[in-house]
Amino acid sequence: MSLVQDLRAVLGDDRVLEEPVELYLYSRDASLMHGQATYVAFPHTTAEVAAVVRVAEAHAVPIIPRGAGTGLAAGAIPVDGGIVLSTTSMNQIELDVDNRTAWVGAGVINLDLSKEAEPYGLSFAPDPSSQSACTIGGNVANNSGGAHCLAEGATTSHVLGLEVVLAGGEVLVLGGQAPDTPGLDLKGLIVGSEGTLGVVTRALVRLLPIEADVRTLLLDFEDLSGATRTVSDVIAAGVVPAALEIMDQKMTTAVENWLRAGLPCDCAAILLAEVVGEPEAVEAEAALVSSIGLENGARNVQVARDEEERAILWKGRKSAFGAVAQVSPNYYLHDTVVPRSRLVETMEEVQAIADRYGLDVYNVFHAGDGNLHPLMAFDASDPVMLDKVHRAGEEMVAACLARGGALSGEHGIGLEKRDMMRDDFTELDLDAQARLKEAFDPAGLFNPAKVLPEGSRCFDFGGVRREIPDGAWL
Amino acid sequence: MSLVQDLRAVLGDDRVLEEPVELYLYSRDASLMHGQATYVAFPHTTAEVAAVVRVAEAHAVPIIPRGAGTGLAAGAIPVDGGIVLSTTSMNQIELDVDNRTAWVGAGVINLDLSKEAEPYGLSFAPDPSSQSACTIGGNVANNSGGAHCLAEGATTSHVLGLEVVLAGGEVLVLGGQAPDTPGLDLKGLIVGSEGTLGVVTRALVRLLPIEADVRTLLLDFEDLSGATRTVSDVIAAGVVPAALEIMDQKMTTAVENWLRAGLPCDCAAILLAEVVGEPEAVEAEAALVSSIGLENGARNVQVARDEEERAILWKGRKSAFGAVAQVSPNYYLHDTVVPRSRLVETMEEVQAIADRYGLDVYNVFHAGDGNLHPLMAFDASDPVMLDKVHRAGEEMVAACLARGGALSGEHGIGLEKRDMMRDDFTELDLDAQARLKEAFDPAGLFNPAKVLPEGSRCFDFGGVRREIPDGAWL
Repeated sequence: MSLVQDLRAVLGDDRVLEEPVELYLYSRDASLMHGQATYVAFPHTTAEVAAVVRVAEAHAVPIIPRGAGTGLAAGAIPVDGGIVLSTTSMNQIELDVDNRTAWVGAGVINLDLSKEAEPYGLSFAPDPSSQSACTIGGNVANNSGGAHCLAEGATTSHVLGLEVVLAGGEVLVLGGQAPDTPGLDLKGLIVGSEGTLGVVTRALVRLLPIEADVRTLLLDFEDLSGATRTVSDVIAAGVVPAALEIMDQKMTTAVENWLRAGLPCDCAAILLAEVVGEPEAVEAEAALVSSIGLENGARNVQVARDEEERAILWKGRKSAFGAVAQVSPNYYLHDTVVPRSRLVETMEEVQAIADRYGLDVYNVFHAGDGNLHPLMAFDASDPVMLDKVHRAGEEMVAACLARGGALSGEHGIGLEKRDMMRDDFTELDLDAQARLKEAFDPAGLFNPAKVLPEGSRCFDFGGVRREIPDGAWL
Repeated sequence: MSLVQDLRAVLGDDRVLEEPVELYLYSRDASLMHGQATYVAFPHTTAEVAAVVRVAEAHAVPIIPRGAGTGLAAGAIPVDGGIVLSTTSMNQIELDVDNRTAWVGAGVINLDLSKEAEPYGLSFAPDPSSQSACTIGGNVANNSGGAHCLAEGATTSHVLGLEVVLAGGEVLVLGGQAPDTPGLDLKGLIVGSEGTLGVVTRALVRLLPIEADVRTLLLDFEDLSGATRTVSDVIAAGVVPAALEIMDQKMTTAVENWLRAGLPCDCAAILLAEVVGEPEAVEAEAALVSSIGLENGARNVQVARDEEERAILWKGRKSAFGAVAQVSPNYYLHDTVVPRSRLVETMEEVQAIADRYGLDVYNVFHAGDGNLHPLMAFDASDPVMLDKVHRAGEEMVAACLARGGALSGEHGIGLEKRDMMRDDFTELDLDAQARLKEAFDPAGLFNPAKVLPEGSRCFDFGGVRREIPDGAWL
């Protein structure tokens, strides 16, 4: 039987898409890149995922696991054909309130999990800006972070167990309620592997108690370095707030023009800080953040008076990328990270690079983690401009690596940064990663051409072509 | 050249041991098992470790990495010959106070790291009971926990980077200052792999600020279940103390008879709780722990008045195993874990098993983590008794697994629990672990016959014999 017949035998006719417009939509994500899907499959159960994997193997066709397609590094796009396996129908949540955990389907939307847990006083800590759309499966694939991961860690710190379908349609359940299970840490290896080792179908996640009290502060500064120094000094003082987020003037202005959230636009940078815990500790930590901010040149410290004001401040932060879309036809967002102590100089270097190329750069970032998100706004219909954006972006990433940083803070490598992996890792290191990939996926069918760079050990093995089609950039 | 000549060419004569008494000492650890070393090697540098690995490969002889030999699961013993590679000479500490990290040699003693960091207000969170002797390399190999890992997580949460020597003498540096580096999580995979993938030579660790305030409470209960319920209720109330440790009456009495620390011996169990943070929060949390304890039947709540009293309480807890050695010629300590919500019934089952075999069982455990350490005291010169201890221990572990627990909480699998791995993992899971082992160690020279069970995929490959010599049990 043909590939599509085999897929329909497993899933039924209505859960296998093949219309050109459908394939087009499922060949993109939130990056500027696109690929070409052969079919899109919507399994409902783990057994169906395993059956789809076996069909793909029988036809030697790649499988590209996909959540909500909110990824920014082209991790979920089919590079050159293959079955896009959408997990969005796998959206069961099984709460275990006593043990403060939940088994959740890969297709569950991040925010839906926290909403489901809220009546029990619990929440899921990782909160990407895309949390109203992105899925738990995507969070696991990318080890996603978020504004509130400063104190609590990224997704890997919140995953206790995983159900995963491997080559051959084998179903493995890794980890469990008990913390730190013995043996090799397969669970930790799967988290962040961007769908290159298998398909994650369910995750057992930790839920944290909603904090007794929360206080959100907005500080504004006449220079960006005052804001970044405040971040370093707060942490040096022994306080780790739940979030420490900086937006520069360009970004603040874009958000304010769109949302009218009351953000100050006449300052170089704003710092959004949130402290949580017992009321007495919150009081003390908020006072400390304020005084350190004032010592570093903050003009004003505004404290959200109620939940409504707090929600407005956060909406401003989480809508930053959307706001830029209102003022510019295209934008390119980078995601890198440097040791916190080198944030000030790195920000200056990023600005200098943008100036040299004559580009507008907007900054919004998880300052507490040293995680930068410089965003270049431009008009992609101008090919000269597009080229400048790519070259400037590469220089920004290189500047971070030169300061002991990493290629990606939380968005993953995907296709976007695959060929920059050699700037961050040695050949020996890449080779070790490739050997692991081969151990799990000897035929090279799981999300091929991602993460590991062209020419590396895994890139060419197996029967699948790996070239990027013409026009993969826009 | 012979193996010993090659080793001496690399390390010099004085850093290769071969005398029978020396080999005997390095063929044991803190478990009841022993093996047989062929040579013991003491490299000083990473380059020397790489050279030793190449010599071992040339002669097809296993390498058994070893820290202080405090392991309880026979993870560092040479099963049937091989080079015991002692890391104890690799004990450099490079503090980076600004970034709150340190690069530390594998042979650095756990407590020495915290002592070195203390003048800067920093400390290393994982604190095994053996912290005054055990090494960072051993902590990494076993993903060691400790009384204070309840709030802060085990070793893997505190390792940002690793330097590791792999097959072929390849040296890899994994991770770095930036959190959550992209690509496959090799660093996370090496942590907890018990020396079976390569030799860890250095680790980049997170240091945490020493908390502003600390309060240590001792509660005593007329029944053990009151103490365990207190633990569940405290955590259900949204408080995660730095430590929640329980000792039963037998254990408390043994400690008190040895140390005269003033512990109450007329109660069924004592609960040692420690809360840390800002003074106001500490005050509030200590009050909450007290009131929850009293609701669950605590007779008294004693609060350490000063650092000296606090040190005495902790010395009592950390000396528990030593105390049993004063009253019994031998003891066998198990290390398992159950979901916290099932602690009470599991403790009752452990006691019932001990009663059925007519064995004395002492309990001391990380109650907050659900990590049990039932300890059976006995006289090993009686072979009937030894057999009973092993059978009772296996039943205790099985009882934990049946309640959703895991084979090991923090001591690792080593040789001791290798053949119980099938009770905790499926064949598919073990096979995936074995494929990873092969990807890193195709010749099977790194710490062979450990972790993966006899008969599994990795057990027999390579040219090395894997039988356990007669008398490996005592």
